[in-house]
Amino acid sequence: MLVTGGEGFVGRHLVNRLAECGHEVTVYDLATGGDLMDSQHLKATMSGHDIVFHLAGYADVRMAGNLFVPVLTWTQHVLEVMREVGVRRIAFSSTSAVYGDTAVFPTPEDCPFPVQTSVYGASKIAAESLIAAYARAFDWRATIFRFAPVLGEGYHKGHLYDFWRKLKQDPMRIEVLGDGQQRRSYIYAGDVADALLIGLNTVRQVNVFNVGHHQTCTVDDSLGWLCESLGVEPERVYTGTSWAGDKRLTLLDCTRLQVLGWTPRVSIRDAVLRTVRSFGT
Amino acid sequence: MLVTGGEGFVGRHLVNRLAECGHEVTVYDLATGGDLMDSQHLKATMSGHDIVFHLAGYADVRMAGNLFVPVLTWTQHVLEVMREVGVRRIAFSSTSAVYGDTAVFPTPEDCPFPVQTSVYGASKIAAESLIAAYARAFDWRATIFRFAPVLGEGYHKGHLYDFWRKLKQDPMRIEVLGDGQQRRSYIYAGDVADALLIGLNTVRQVNVFNVGHHQTCTVDDSLGWLCESLGVEPERVYTGTSWAGDKRLTLLDCTRLQVLGWTPRVSIRDAVLRTVRSFGT
Repeated sequence: MLVTGGEGFVGRHLVNRLAECGHEVTVYDLATGGDLMDSQHLKATMSGHDIVFHLAGYADVRMAGNLFVPVLTWTQHVLEVMREVGVRRIAFSSTSAVYGDTAVFPTPEDCPFPVQTSVYGASKIAAESLIAAYARAFDWRATIFRFAPVLGEGYHKGHLYDFWRKLKQDPMRIEVLGDGQQRRSYIYAGDVADALLIGLNTVRQVNVFNVGHHQTCTVDDSLGWLCESLGVEPERVYTGTSWAGDKRLTLLDCTRLQVLGWTPRVSIRDAVLRTVRSFGT
Repeated sequence: MLVTGGEGFVGRHLVNRLAECGHEVTVYDLATGGDLMDSQHLKATMSGHDIVFHLAGYADVRMAGNLFVPVLTWTQHVLEVMREVGVRRIAFSSTSAVYGDTAVFPTPEDCPFPVQTSVYGASKIAAESLIAAYARAFDWRATIFRFAPVLGEGYHKGHLYDFWRKLKQDPMRIEVLGDGQQRRSYIYAGDVADALLIGLNTVRQVNVFNVGHHQTCTVDDSLGWLCESLGVEPERVYTGTSWAGDKRLTLLDCTRLQVLGWTPRVSIRDAVLRTVRSFGT
């Protein structure tokens, strides 16, 4: 199995889980010299593998305008090299952001055709679509996973990390974007890795699975757990308005994956605490 | 108004209609030196315009694998140059192919989230998505039109043109891919131009409109009208299987556009006859 982005946050959790299960894993990651723009190197590395987990991408939802074309170029290189070396199975990490401003909660994979609201979501739906078209054209099996926001050891981004950094500087006062009531069905990265493994058992040409928690928590909840973990009690100052594209609610309908036997094993609270502990002290 | 791809098939019909309505139109087309990869030239040309009709693309549905990234690079250049010069309205020509294997007919714009089945559809949904994300980010107005297969003067591609060429060589016998019963709600390019003009009056950040005929015809029907026009009566030989990705039915629900006053003025039969007459004799 080849894992692009295997040195990334979700990639590391997946690679560990694959190794635990006895799979032979090759990591292809820019951090270790695996450039997806280098089709020759990718071809030499991919040769002999049966499955590609294509996780390489940029994790930041807000800033991706100039990354749209490069990210899709990577995906197309992966697909073209798969053709050349004869790999016929691909798993892809997409995002709940592709549901844009959906009004359907929990959101199923076949909710009404959404309008995209972020370049990040646009780049993911573009890559999903190209992968699906290749799977159709060449009779491959493609499995697309749409992740809710992921937490876990090694996730040094996002609002939790921002809160943590600020509280290290000033444990008495914390500014919260918006009203603190935005809800998310955060999922633990280890549960995501399980989902990726279970999704491999699918047999259709194109399979799409939501991956998120059935629970939700608010920004206020997660800040509370963080403060508890740090032993601080800051005054919370709400800005009232959040960043453009911030959503009130992310909650995915994960019935498709649950039917295959998957369910989150780590609560959102524990996912937050594990994440926070990995920040250090 | 700036029209990218203004020398293309739909582009010419639109430019004519815009001129009839008294609009000042600038055509930006590779055929007349307007390269969308040349951002500096695009910037100089776009400056001073209020609306961009972004029609430039590749019309062939079946072969577009290696064009995916270039087409999206064009679209991103258009959007970035709009930002730079301050244009805040864009209309985009997408396709019914984005509905993939939908089971809903007539297909509305918000049908269940489809899986893509062609690289052409994938490239269009990718561009739609990027445009929508920019419109959201910068508070522009974007109008996306999903065209059913378009016919009209100047369309020298597709099955009608193939039939015509073959009948010129052998008027006694014609091979038909599939069983001749594939149905399409072909739309006349002049009616598409009307739709593009009417869609300009929309006020939401992102507007999506289907553009197709409420009638359908089969491949056999259109072949019949072609033969009638040519005065030939060939034996029809059906291959039984068609090309991969060929659909049994394309039929769009165009209620959204009809509510704004649009309706096709040219029947499918007349659209076929006008197309055929433009092939020459």
